[in-house]
Amino acid sequence: MVIGGDAAGMSAASTAKRRDPDLDVVAFDRGPYTSFSACGIPFYLSGVVERSDGLIARSPEEHRKNGLAVHPRTEVLSIDLDARSATVRDATGAERREGFDQLVLATGAESVALPVPGAERAEPARTIPEAERLKFALEHSGTSAVVVGGGYIGLEMAEALVERGLTVTLVEREQSVMASLDEEMAAHVQDAAEGVGIDVRLGATLEEIRKHSVVVDGEEIDADHVIAAAGVRPAADLAVDADMSVGESGGICVDDGQRCADHDGVWAAGDCVETWHRVLKRSVSVKLGTHANKQGRVAGINATGGDAAFPGVIGTAASRICRYEVARTGITEAEAAQAGIEVRSALIKDRTRAGYYPGSGPIWVKLVVEPGSGRLLGGQIVGTEGAAKRIDVLALAVWNEMAVDELALVDLAYAPPYSGVYDPLLVAAYATAKIA
Amino acid sequence: MVIGGDAAGMSAASTAKRRDPDLDVVAFDRGPYTSFSACGIPFYLSGVVERSDGLIARSPEEHRKNGLAVHPRTEVLSIDLDARSATVRDATGAERREGFDQLVLATGAESVALPVPGAERAEPARTIPEAERLKFALEHSGTSAVVVGGGYIGLEMAEALVERGLTVTLVEREQSVMASLDEEMAAHVQDAAEGVGIDVRLGATLEEIRKHSVVVDGEEIDADHVIAAAGVRPAADLAVDADMSVGESGGICVDDGQRCADHDGVWAAGDCVETWHRVLKRSVSVKLGTHANKQGRVAGINATGGDAAFPGVIGTAASRICRYEVARTGITEAEAAQAGIEVRSALIKDRTRAGYYPGSGPIWVKLVVEPGSGRLLGGQIVGTEGAAKRIDVLALAVWNEMAVDELALVDLAYAPPYSGVYDPLLVAAYATAKIA
Repeated sequence: MVIGGDAAGMSAASTAKRRDPDLDVVAFDRGPYTSFSACGIPFYLSGVVERSDGLIARSPEEHRKNGLAVHPRTEVLSIDLDARSATVRDATGAERREGFDQLVLATGAESVALPVPGAERAEPARTIPEAERLKFALEHSGTSAVVVGGGYIGLEMAEALVERGLTVTLVEREQSVMASLDEEMAAHVQDAAEGVGIDVRLGATLEEIRKHSVVVDGEEIDADHVIAAAGVRPAADLAVDADMSVGESGGICVDDGQRCADHDGVWAAGDCVETWHRVLKRSVSVKLGTHANKQGRVAGINATGGDAAFPGVIGTAASRICRYEVARTGITEAEAAQAGIEVRSALIKDRTRAGYYPGSGPIWVKLVVEPGSGRLLGGQIVGTEGAAKRIDVLALAVWNEMAVDELALVDLAYAPPYSGVYDPLLVAAYATAKIA
Repeated sequence: MVIGGDAAGMSAASTAKRRDPDLDVVAFDRGPYTSFSACGIPFYLSGVVERSDGLIARSPEEHRKNGLAVHPRTEVLSIDLDARSATVRDATGAERREGFDQLVLATGAESVALPVPGAERAEPARTIPEAERLKFALEHSGTSAVVVGGGYIGLEMAEALVERGLTVTLVEREQSVMASLDEEMAAHVQDAAEGVGIDVRLGATLEEIRKHSVVVDGEEIDADHVIAAAGVRPAADLAVDADMSVGESGGICVDDGQRCADHDGVWAAGDCVETWHRVLKRSVSVKLGTHANKQGRVAGINATGGDAAFPGVIGTAASRICRYEVARTGITEAEAAQAGIEVRSALIKDRTRAGYYPGSGPIWVKLVVEPGSGRLLGGQIVGTEGAAKRIDVLALAVWNEMAVDELALVDLAYAPPYSGVYDPLLVAAYATAKIA
């Protein structure tokens, strides 16, 4: 039995069925769809992606063709690990019990409600039906919007709304957008957001959501639409109710085989679990489709007698925000400070291509290293086209615990359309090696 | 004394002067320019880069401002390592002797002459003056061109000439373009070249160059212009004449500090030397500006009492050929066979972005691994925008001797504008791990 029909759940289900075609695999999801790309929703809202079904990698019908018993619009109300059964409620409201031998929990994440009067007026857009409702609403009414939360999702949403022609205000509690970057890097992202006309309010407290406005620090701001992007938390209620262990982050505790502690034959994967962070050397909650897919696959292999391991994460992420590509891996200087890890860092500005090659734009690279050894602990990149995916090179360096003096001399590709004769990453590694 | 005013030579000169401002640094170059980007010449010919001075990173005047005594249009005729002096001839034809304490050889590479009657009719374009002459000629006469040699330079040249409106035939001796790729990968590059109208002739023997045509396998082909791109060799005559060691590849032998064997106080760097290949575990001749720069810097550090090492290369390279970005690192299957190294390989086709995201295009990734261990020995990538620089991730994996089963689970960045939920590199690593 798989609970949750998205990335982690359906990866687990598909993998298990592929490995053991005789296995009965049943999957439940609260919503009408399976295997959809939440990451694509801002692009659907902006119109870059036209139809919502473009975001669906595989429908319930397609999964059924592969032999999986998929039940959409069916909520799992509780699980009984001793009795090996779950109570489910289908779209008609009818409840029934379903048995299982092996269980995979892939319940995902849920939005944190905004702690203000009128919070229910915020329009959610985390699922396809929600996104469809919001897009319809945007097409039929309103000229102004407020986005609450200045992380990458809030910024992507704000950009999508600006592209639709709305007047957009972004409200962020902290003194900087993109808390996943250090402030001086995030400042470039803010520039880009302001460049397309987003009114970015930092250190701002949302006090109330009214019918066509919000109140921020006492000021009323027009808001025909309010989008909340102020964070999500692991959806672990079912697990908690079944006495399963949940960590400090709120995520379900699993080992590197995605096995739930203290419960044989129970796996969990994706946004609902805690994941080992190889640099911080502790478990954290990261919600990204790429981890969900990999962890689901590991759960599916192990639930069918295999022996796979998820090696943990290093905090790699990328997004495109207005004119800039933005990416990070490892830990930032701010995260290091918070974790009590002493670091040194350097920041360089360079060009994405050879200076003489057309289309060259700015790229900023910040590297964070261990003092003395110069071991790379993290990297951040902001820049124009071709900037973001360079983070994967830094991810490999962090993963392999390379020192920046070695990285500075690695044989990376050079051609004028892709970089100057020293790639910006080599320039950054060289600069950081000097101060490590 | 530095002989050669391009990437390696001027890196050595600048580094030495920066480390020891009191040092007298003198540099000679045969040509009128210093520090120019040969890699940019095809883009200058096509018009993508408008002016030739855009390709010059630093002119002799600029180097002089930094305290370097730069002598362009001055040829070094011979060196006497015992007497610590060189005989040079300046632009007036006058010869003189110049002494040195430390010597850096950075004489670069030279074209291999085409072994056919009329070879002197081929128009060279390896230096800025040659490129300027060729561009002038292209602007003023001719409608057809033949490019001899189907490597990346030949292909870039052919594309540049097509962009100028010429009818272009590419003549390649082997059965495939881009010998640096395995044939099935090179086939995509050939498709791209033919797609813009280049007439690609494989297994073709050039027999003669006439005034407005060439003869290929007995057939006369129109050729108002003939561009030779059939390979270069290390320019090591000065070194050979001075009894310095030269390896099988024709490059000057140096250790990892760029020191010439058996000669104290003599360094060499760039296209004229042999370089350690970390995967092949032998010295090879690679001619790329990025190595030249790094080796020059190492030579400059060591010539001023420092202790730097060039860690060797792994055969990374990238180019843009018509609609495709093309890149490679490590060794190909063909190179492995030639070196007697047993390998396994897998090739996957994927998309450069999430399927629903606009601008997504094809990407092919081929990985070559050590049987059993699955250690990554090489990778090749062909695809549309965003394909080529992914090679740097494989380069880091080769560099760190990672196995593909580990690579398949590394935390690479995911966002719809940059890849599907599994990056094509992870898909390739997973596919290769299965057959390793």
